[in-house]
Amino acid sequence: MSYNWSWHIEWQTPYEFHAHGITNVFFDKQTDFQRIMLANLHRFGKTLIIDGKIQSSVEDEYIYHESLVHPLLLSLNEPKEVLILGGGEGATLREVLKHRYVRKAVMVDIDSTVIDVARNYMKEWHAGAFEDPRTELVIGDGYDYVKKSSEVFDAVVLDLTDPMRESTSYKLYTKEFYEILSSKVRDGGGIVTQATSPSFSLEVFSVINNTCRVVFGNSHPYITYIPAFDGLWGFVASIKGGGSIIKSEKVDEEVKERIVGELKHYDGPTHASMFNIPKGLRRILNFEKKVSTESNPVVVPA
Amino acid sequence: MSYNWSWHIEWQTPYEFHAHGITNVFFDKQTDFQRIMLANLHRFGKTLIIDGKIQSSVEDEYIYHESLVHPLLLSLNEPKEVLILGGGEGATLREVLKHRYVRKAVMVDIDSTVIDVARNYMKEWHAGAFEDPRTELVIGDGYDYVKKSSEVFDAVVLDLTDPMRESTSYKLYTKEFYEILSSKVRDGGGIVTQATSPSFSLEVFSVINNTCRVVFGNSHPYITYIPAFDGLWGFVASIKGGGSIIKSEKVDEEVKERIVGELKHYDGPTHASMFNIPKGLRRILNFEKKVSTESNPVVVPA
Amino acid sequence: MSYNWSWHIEWQTPYEFHAHGITNVFFDKQTDFQRIMLANLHRFGKTLIIDGKIQSSVEDEYIYHESLVHPLLLSLNEPKEVLILGGGEGATLREVLKHRYVRKAVMVDIDSTVIDVARNYMKEWHAGAFEDPRTELVIGDGYDYVKKSSEVFDAVVLDLTDPMRESTSYKLYTKEFYEILSSKVRDGGGIVTQATSPSFSLEVFSVINNTCRVVFGNSHPYITYIPAFDGLWGFVASIKGGGSIIKSEKVDEEVKERIVGELKHYDGPTHASMFNIPKGLRRILNFEKKVSTESNPVVVPA
Amino acid sequence: MSYNWSWHIEWQTPYEFHAHGITNVFFDKQTDFQRIMLANLHRFGKTLIIDGKIQSSVEDEYIYHESLVHPLLLSLNEPKEVLILGGGEGATLREVLKHRYVRKAVMVDIDSTVIDVARNYMKEWHAGAFEDPRTELVIGDGYDYVKKSSEVFDAVVLDLTDPMRESTSYKLYTKEFYEILSSKVRDGGGIVTQATSPSFSLEVFSVINNTCRVVFGNSHPYITYIPAFDGLWGFVASIKGGGSIIKSEKVDEEVKERIVGELKHYDGPTHASMFNIPKGLRRILNFEKKVSTESNPVVVPA
Repeated sequence: MSYNWSWHIEWQTPYEFHAHGITNVFFDKQTDFQRIMLANLHRFGKTLIIDGKIQSSVEDEYIYHESLVHPLLLSLNEPKEVLILGGGEGATLREVLKHRYVRKAVMVDIDSTVIDVARNYMKEWHAGAFEDPRTELVIGDGYDYVKKSSEVFDAVVLDLTDPMRESTSYKLYTKEFYEILSSKVRDGGGIVTQATSPSFSLEVFSVINNTCRVVFGNSHPYITYIPAFDGLWGFVASIKGGGSIIKSEKVDEEVKERIVGELKHYDGPTHASMFNIPKGLRRILNFEKKVSTESNPVVVPA
Repeated sequence: MSYNWSWHIEWQTPYEFHAHGITNVFFDKQTDFQRIMLANLHRFGKTLIIDGKIQSSVEDEYIYHESLVHPLLLSLNEPKEVLILGGGEGATLREVLKHRYVRKAVMVDIDSTVIDVARNYMKEWHAGAFEDPRTELVIGDGYDYVKKSSEVFDAVVLDLTDPMRESTSYKLYTKEFYEILSSKVRDGGGIVTQATSPSFSLEVFSVINNTCRVVFGNSHPYITYIPAFDGLWGFVASIKGGGSIIKSEKVDEEVKERIVGELKHYDGPTHASMFNIPKGLRRILNFEKKVSTESNPVVVPA
Repeated sequence: MSYNWSWHIEWQTPYEFHAHGITNVFFDKQTDFQRIMLANLHRFGKTLIIDGKIQSSVEDEYIYHESLVHPLLLSLNEPKEVLILGGGEGATLREVLKHRYVRKAVMVDIDSTVIDVARNYMKEWHAGAFEDPRTELVIGDGYDYVKKSSEVFDAVVLDLTDPMRESTSYKLYTKEFYEILSSKVRDGGGIVTQATSPSFSLEVFSVINNTCRVVFGNSHPYITYIPAFDGLWGFVASIKGGGSIIKSEKVDEEVKERIVGELKHYDGPTHASMFNIPKGLRRILNFEKKVSTESNPVVVPA
Repeated sequence: MSYNWSWHIEWQTPYEFHAHGITNVFFDKQTDFQRIMLANLHRFGKTLIIDGKIQSSVEDEYIYHESLVHPLLLSLNEPKEVLILGGGEGATLREVLKHRYVRKAVMVDIDSTVIDVARNYMKEWHAGAFEDPRTELVIGDGYDYVKKSSEVFDAVVLDLTDPMRESTSYKLYTKEFYEILSSKVRDGGGIVTQATSPSFSLEVFSVINNTCRVVFGNSHPYITYIPAFDGLWGFVASIKGGGSIIKSEKVDEEVKERIVGELKHYDGPTHASMFNIPKGLRRILNFEKKVSTESNPVVVPA
């Protein structure tokens, strides 16, 4: 009979979940850090799932990765050195390397198994980015790396798992961490972080935005809908010294000039759709007072 | 124990579903037309569910209803007479009646039980709109009403259930129907229809848009994220004779001038977020060639 | 479309659940004690669900209620006065009243809403038993009733919800309670309790059995499969003074002589199927050492 | 967070399913015949799942395999040559080989991948049975094998997937097949088949029983509860020439004499629990008139 029997179930809260039919499991292993599953979802094709959260699917990963990388990098003046924390699939790296000005991209991921799975099964994601001569791959804890590093970067891209109390990822969304990070960014450079879902963890998005605003003196929240995440997704960019984000009208021109290769999601109108935040959500972001700290961090509800 | 046990499960396809915990069922009845359930969802509060599809929730119904009504009505020059097909909750009617220029609003719904449930349990939705002297409520089939009516309207708002083969609702998304409808709209008037979800039935959205484009000579698709629908939602507006849709920059001013009462979702930036459609989706809409007809209609996958 | 969307989901543990399609909800209310839902399940028809646990369905309630009542009552010598704790549907009462010798049946249930729902919607269960002149109905706490009562009974039937820590029902499965109860049973009389599921809470079944064995000096565990409970169900009977349980070979004769009306589940071979416990389970019951006490009670896992 | 996200969902009908949490997927592949998954279920440990149906779990497979093999073999007079159709895990073979009298066991399975998975991952099941010198393993279609074989056996054990219309397994539950099979069994020999679940496909169990009764002139249906199958399971044994099934009282003695190694499920009381069928089910089996034929076969509902 025709009812699907192999399922990935993603819990948003104890009272809500989304279920996706799996047609095949390619890889499934518990590492020291997390359970890593690479499965074929009926709807999205090959999909990386970590600890029960869809990380990205072959069909729509470009939406997340283009949205994470390009608004910030196109807003900066010739960013040359970029630091990526997380991003094990190699797709954030791929997008960063599309920028003509980039000469060095350091990527730090904690779990070598994710990298191995990406290398062996996920060529559509990294597309050879790990082999790019500008790439420097570090297996290690992002927090420690930043703390100890003496390097300074033009841009930092935080492509981390959501802040959860059980993992240590929540530390990388706190005031303390952003303050350290700020000292590793050149004036006129910037940082951007994924900021969880405005649909399912609105307060987390809002507090991350406010924490960036407090630490960096400015923040530019933006959102886009990502099918494999079953909702809106939030991002926050900040620019050290307070430069502004590129205007919609300039996006297509800058893309043409600065980016090698095709973009499938990001262009002028897409930029407008992302940075124009609907009224209800805008109000919440504007009135947010909370700051995430190590002793009182925000974490996702499920 | 703490696991939720009473669930509404909404199937997007045989390979995907979203589940919402129910804390209480207020009303549950099979009528001649459909199964109508009014339940309290843990996340959204009081929610109307028809044949397994969430129609609207007390918490976020304003997003859908404001998005459906205001872009079209604010784009028209003093719309006075408005026809609403469907919209049993009374909330579309409520939004229409907020427009100063509106003198008459005819609402046609097929199922009197929906109206009864709305009157008895859903005051937050209709907010007295059924009692407004400008309201004319008709219980009957929308298709028949339009066919037989000799009236002409400034605006028609189609607030119908999704096109499904088992119901007859699919007929109200076809070329044949739009052609009849066109004859009941004044020059310079317009129609707007909900157009299903770009997230779960993209082809349906795209074909409805193209069908409007073909019949009315122009179409203005737009989208917004609706939490209770677990995804993006699509709408299509067309203006008879080809007038244009209001610009983002003018929205706040027109709202102030023409609308009595507060809006919670719709304003200038929200308008920009809705009418700027991301690149991937825009391309699909642009290249669509199919038209929905009575003999070959589009229908949702589940 | 054909996918069912209204579901009752019963959790056995955080890693297992059974889901049943609901075609209609007749009644759904949170009382001071519990959430009571009466729903029509596609498979079982009208079904009473309390706090997420199926209590009994119109289609197969006879299996549970006949199994609970008849083995004990047919093993006793002319039981005349019977106490029932719980059993709000009235079906345990109905089975007790089928015994010719019974002159008085006192039923104590804590939640009057259950009784009201039974009276109004569940005639198939009680079948008029509440109106039988031998019936004495008490709304109150079973524990308190037994403690304060000065009556003595020939048989006590414990038809309670499963022992859960959040409710106070766990107290009625403890050594302390059974000791009080023992003083209210005549010599040669007996008690029987539902004892949860050997399929999903084997330890609870086994400990209840051992607790009865310790308090009453003997215990007769038995099991039967109940479709609406999705597994085996356990019961424990004890006879004060140590009389024996009726033999399979005698059951049909005694049923004929002592019971007014038809039985649909219980007869000689059924008795043999229930009291012959498979090897693996038998071993666990035999070696059980734990006793449920008020300070260290057994409770179901979910 | 603590909610399980990787699930096996087994549909009994479109209105009922049972869900089991998966902690790890070891193997998952679509062969020419079926999708084969070997997964670790939280409740049952290592479990073989074929086309969405749990075949057997390491924790309780002994219940199914002992129940399938021993009642028939102990009822026969010195069975020496045994044919097994299906049974890819090797556990039916293992149980057959425990019988002292058995000199040859031919096992025919259609899918070599199942055998490979069993050899590589499921040692607990076959326990070396594939290497036993009495074993003869054939990869091929059971129906064809029986049709073409010129051998005659003392016992035939049918350990097949449930009859489904999409697969060809339904043919091996028909009158036509049993008639061919009968010609391959010695007088005084017997056949036994798994007969699906009385809990979820009662009619199928009943019709298989009646089909055996019609073809072989006698049938002995029996049932036992199997946790990993979430319900009762049915079996039917028939003896060519009409000999009787062993009595409960003789089981322990015969087990001791004829079986090498320990049994965990099957003994005298277990036999009594299996062959004493409760009243309601007994009545259905007794009154069954339908026979499964190739042109009008019984198939499971999901």
